[in-house]
Amino acid sequence: MSKDRFSIGVCQLRTETDYEATMEKAEAMIRESAASGADIVVLPEMFSCPYNRQYFRVFAERGHEDTCRRLAAWARENRILLIGGSVPEREGDLLYNTGFVYDAQGQLLARHRKVHLFDVDLPGMRFFESRTFTPGKEITVFDTGFGRMGLAVCFDVRFPELFRAMARRGAEVIFLPAQFNMTTGPAHWEATLRTRAVDNEVFLVAASAARYVGFSYECWGHSMILDPYGKALAAADETEQLLLAEIDRNRIAEVRAQLPTFLHLREELYAVAD
Amino acid sequence: MSKDRFSIGVCQLRTETDYEATMEKAEAMIRESAASGADIVVLPEMFSCPYNRQYFRVFAERGHEDTCRRLAAWARENRILLIGGSVPEREGDLLYNTGFVYDAQGQLLARHRKVHLFDVDLPGMRFFESRTFTPGKEITVFDTGFGRMGLAVCFDVRFPELFRAMARRGAEVIFLPAQFNMTTGPAHWEATLRTRAVDNEVFLVAASAARYVGFSYECWGHSMILDPYGKALAAADETEQLLLAEIDRNRIAEVRAQLPTFLHLREELYAVAD
Repeated sequence: MSKDRFSIGVCQLRTETDYEATMEKAEAMIRESAASGADIVVLPEMFSCPYNRQYFRVFAERGHEDTCRRLAAWARENRILLIGGSVPEREGDLLYNTGFVYDAQGQLLARHRKVHLFDVDLPGMRFFESRTFTPGKEITVFDTGFGRMGLAVCFDVRFPELFRAMARRGAEVIFLPAQFNMTTGPAHWEATLRTRAVDNEVFLVAASAARYVGFSYECWGHSMILDPYGKALAAADETEQLLLAEIDRNRIAEVRAQLPTFLHLREELYAVAD
Repeated sequence: MSKDRFSIGVCQLRTETDYEATMEKAEAMIRESAASGADIVVLPEMFSCPYNRQYFRVFAERGHEDTCRRLAAWARENRILLIGGSVPEREGDLLYNTGFVYDAQGQLLARHRKVHLFDVDLPGMRFFESRTFTPGKEITVFDTGFGRMGLAVCFDVRFPELFRAMARRGAEVIFLPAQFNMTTGPAHWEATLRTRAVDNEVFLVAASAARYVGFSYECWGHSMILDPYGKALAAADETEQLLLAEIDRNRIAEVRAQLPTFLHLREELYAVAD
């Protein structure tokens, strides 16, 4: 039997250009989350590497193994399930934007390679992740001592089909390490998160990096932990901080009984991702 | 060639228990919208019939033909495309929650029977539309002098697949006559509308009835006209009022070039409704 009640901590940290400084900070925030009772701790997208193209390449060339070793150790030492945000993963000549998940024994439990890369050409925000990264080819759900969970990364959230598929594969909590920015953040971040949670009646844990004022990519922050009705159990502003929320998985069955959208899906009229 | 620029008016009217009083008000608001330059006018869900079970049956027994004759006349007299919200439609022994669309010549152009019926058992809000209505069996898109458009009704908005299908069938403007309520309105209305618009990069025109304080079903109001980036071109509070917004269809191609989510869909990984 997996546990119905548990706590989730989100480390909204600011990634530094100095790798060791970031690692020290991540370790301290994870430790503090665990000390505050978190059973699961979540890091932001690209927590190990400043979010911009020139850094991706340099940091990826060192390999992701050192960061993964640390993630495993932090998970084991703090006896937590660690959703390791994402890091630049190198495999041969290819790079991926990848989230690694470690269990409380420090064993690799799952890996999600960002499926939808962030390519936009908006006024004030041009970015082409696909010039650096290769997209992943898998939808990621995994079993834990707290039930089945799903993992997606940032731009993945713009695709309702991916979230429907994770929910229909049984994910009850979906993690989204992310770095929206000062353009798309105010326009789309909260509405999209809330709608994915409500459409699928799942918990949604969105872990952003903190805003780095003056850095070439200023991210929006505003990490959130949402319940299956779309209610914010915890929400951040743009500054560096920890979020903590208690999860009761029974809330999923309750909301699905009150607002039984899954029963109303009309699969004879349209395709439903699964 | 269909026109790229046009104006849409939304009549956020309060439905009265006196049918003729409602009809007079609807006619006056449509006339005022057209006089203000609206090429298209949108009425709310069940604009002709107070939104509650006992009224559905009584109003439906009169038949929907009288209301439809008036819709056709109002469209023709005001030379507008009229999205006639929805009415209780009777066909044999069956009732539907149906939106009728009339062109500027007063010809019936499309009909949408609400596909997902509103059945909820929330604290403070129990409602079971399926005890009265039969669900529709079709996704509704139609061609107009202003391009291809789609129509859904209220609870339909909770299903991202329906909106994806309308967009992939070419709908550029999607109408949603609706009546969320004081429970689900503050929790879900705006986030869901904005996300459907942004996910599909379409205009979304959500026409609610006005709140009727003291009536057995108090609706949320807050009609909105959203652009393909999710920006509100016009937005109401809960009171009776007209909204008017100018639409430029070129904005769709612009947003889709800036944020090309349609190109990123990964149909080899998940089913996409169409």
